[in-house]
Amino acid sequence: MTAHDPRFDTLIERRGSHCVKWDMMEKIYGVPQQDGLAMWVADMDFRPPQCVLDAVSRQVDHGIVGYFGDDDAYHDAIRWWMRERHGWEVEADAIFTTHGLVNGTAMCVDTFTAPGDGIVLFTPVYHAFAKVIRANDRRVVECELSYDGTRYAPDFEAWDEVVERSNATMMILCSPHNPNGRVWTRAELEGFAALARRHDLILVSDEIHHDLVFPGTTHVPMANIAGISDRLVMMTSTTKTFNIAGSHSGNVIIPNEGLRARFAKRMMALGLSPNSFGLFMATAAYSPEGAAWVDDLIAYLDGNRRLFDAGLDAIPGVKSVPLEATYLSWVDFSGTGMQREEFTRRVEKDARIAVNHGTTFGKGGDAFLRFNIATPRANVEAAVERMQKAFADLQ
Amino acid sequence: MTAHDPRFDTLIERRGSHCVKWDMMEKIYGVPQQDGLAMWVADMDFRPPQCVLDAVSRQVDHGIVGYFGDDDAYHDAIRWWMRERHGWEVEADAIFTTHGLVNGTAMCVDTFTAPGDGIVLFTPVYHAFAKVIRANDRRVVECELSYDGTRYAPDFEAWDEVVERSNATMMILCSPHNPNGRVWTRAELEGFAALARRHDLILVSDEIHHDLVFPGTTHVPMANIAGISDRLVMMTSTTKTFNIAGSHSGNVIIPNEGLRARFAKRMMALGLSPNSFGLFMATAAYSPEGAAWVDDLIAYLDGNRRLFDAGLDAIPGVKSVPLEATYLSWVDFSGTGMQREEFTRRVEKDARIAVNHGTTFGKGGDAFLRFNIATPRANVEAAVERMQKAFADLQ
Ligand SMILES: Cc1ncc(COP(=O)(O)O)c(C=O)c1O
Ligand SMILES: Cc1ncc(COP(=O)(O)O)c(C=O)c1O
Repeated sequence: MTAHDPRFDTLIERRGSHCVKWDMMEKIYGVPQQDGLAMWVADMDFRPPQCVLDAVSRQVDHGIVGYFGDDDAYHDAIRWWMRERHGWEVEADAIFTTHGLVNGTAMCVDTFTAPGDGIVLFTPVYHAFAKVIRANDRRVVECELSYDGTRYAPDFEAWDEVVERSNATMMILCSPHNPNGRVWTRAELEGFAALARRHDLILVSDEIHHDLVFPGTTHVPMANIAGISDRLVMMTSTTKTFNIAGSHSGNVIIPNEGLRARFAKRMMALGLSPNSFGLFMATAAYSPEGAAWVDDLIAYLDGNRRLFDAGLDAIPGVKSVPLEATYLSWVDFSGTGMQREEFTRRVEKDARIAVNHGTTFGKGGDAFLRFNIATPRANVEAAVERMQKAFADLQ
Repeated sequence: MTAHDPRFDTLIERRGSHCVKWDMMEKIYGVPQQDGLAMWVADMDFRPPQCVLDAVSRQVDHGIVGYFGDDDAYHDAIRWWMRERHGWEVEADAIFTTHGLVNGTAMCVDTFTAPGDGIVLFTPVYHAFAKVIRANDRRVVECELSYDGTRYAPDFEAWDEVVERSNATMMILCSPHNPNGRVWTRAELEGFAALARRHDLILVSDEIHHDLVFPGTTHVPMANIAGISDRLVMMTSTTKTFNIAGSHSGNVIIPNEGLRARFAKRMMALGLSPNSFGLFMATAAYSPEGAAWVDDLIAYLDGNRRLFDAGLDAIPGVKSVPLEATYLSWVDFSGTGMQREEFTRRVEKDARIAVNHGTTFGKGGDAFLRFNIATPRANVEAAVERMQKAFADLQ
């Protein structure tokens, strides 16, 4: 087990802090506020690195929170991070700052597709994609990932046919993937890119989880795949990496100038410009201090993941899919032979854990629940204990 | 002259703080960063009330800036403020939180009009309205306010014809008005409402300046005008009142349930949800402590306005339009007989003051410049002195 770390071991009370994860679990899942464990929404129960909090304190000390100007330092920080951490050269002019990446995804759908268009998703996948697509009166085209019981993989041959008859104009890739934790290999990424080219699709690559990759795998930015830049939209953010989702800030990075001009027009049409907290925090986060913190975070999450997987896999018929990235454990209950209602009831009512239901992630998610393990180890231990107890009859 | 107040008299250095007003004036207007006076962008050189800064500090102390949940307290604060300060009863379900009101305006245009539609503006008016309308491929329909040399007024009879042949579906009213400082009377508001009804227009009432009203006048929310609620969109915000524009937060408040449902769908389609700083700051601001601060602010701005108007009106041919609301002085240079280039050059090059050009506000703005007087009195004094010197030959 990875060493403990007081920065991540400390239990910080989030109940009563306007935290959707801990304060809304009773209302949404019926998991009691008082002794429930909140393992749904994708934020972490950890503080961001001190440099990020200091950036906010400096705002308070100065005191004036007016209109932001001069984003050179912000752009420099983004470019530094992408170069240092991902080997990816970003042009400052390619960067748009949206109100987070749900907004970023929505802006891509709005800008680059038309009502009625199909948009390809690789399911099971992050639920907000389908929500945004449908709210825009576009159609979700589901390409189901293949799954061998431990690992997910693309199935390009089967998908070619699905996409062919779908009238699709865009695909949204989650890379690394939420919720199966895959870090796509270079060969797989080339496959996704080829699929986009074959069917003349815009490829939106949501790489919000790109920094949360466990040792042994390397994330390759889609921007570094050859022959795709003319149809590519990259999306990244500080908010997952540094746990500052409340700042609602994200970056949509567009290499191609034609696509960029269209996106810029829609940004202006919708009157979107970023809040200054997001800009100051991101500038501070994308720094050597931020990088060191992320390395320590990953070591800690690695410990959580081992503990959680071992604990859940010890329950006969339950399988926690091994994560290569993200802190979102994807747990397969199909081996229990239970109905969805039954294993969900046990998790929510008996174990008193709030989790995301697999059904919301699209095709292939029905037998799964998603557990957020970015919480102090004591909570992961408690979750394992509660789960083993709730499913004790299977032992 | 109103008494001094250390909270507003204190010169806070904003140069080098990523402040667009002070840090970009050289780049945009050629006014030297070092000893120029920044009187353009509509934010104030004052700190917000302590309760607002404390709300941010509490975020830092807690440390976790995750996804926000439970907006009851936020909605309660808005409802309290509108009732107490404006005699306006707001339903919680009517409130949408956008990324500020440029975004709010854009969402109204996007949701309630179609490409090619005309949108009526009462010019000269806040420049972003026209920008947003054009970026959405809608048409700006300019209804020019009448002006008698000191005061602006609506001219409904003349406008009926303009609107009739315009194919307009929406009007955007600025109430109180930026940049002429008018607080529309109840009778005038009824006139605007009747115009909207006669031509079957959605009426968007941007009331972002509603708290910044000088003694002697009373702002009436358009929501309190009879017979308009079925076609009305109200827009308000904490950001002008409390000088927290960087938080990029605003409220679009829609009494009618049908319009509300359409707006809600577009909010979801565009993936818009607010950042937590804006929510925490607004909840703290809309409070008795916030209210007391606003009263003191207005007394201080009243002193600035008197000083500024007296100083500018002392220059032959120059007239500062008397403000009933806002801190945005609208200065008429037509009496100087100078070309626009000439009086602008004197203000920028000789007086070294960065101001907004009247031309950007639409029809009727050419002979004007807009000066932001929400700055410590010493800066207003300096501005007056510099202006008198730059136009000394007219004495
Ligand atoms: C793949 C993916 N994209 C986007 C988001 C949300 O991004 P934001 O909070 O910036 O809207 C999430 C959050 O879980 C995510 O997993
Ligand atoms: C009338 C009016 N509406 C909207 C805004 C801008 O609002 P926001 O900063 O919330 O986008 C301003 C700023 O000057 C304004 O004067």
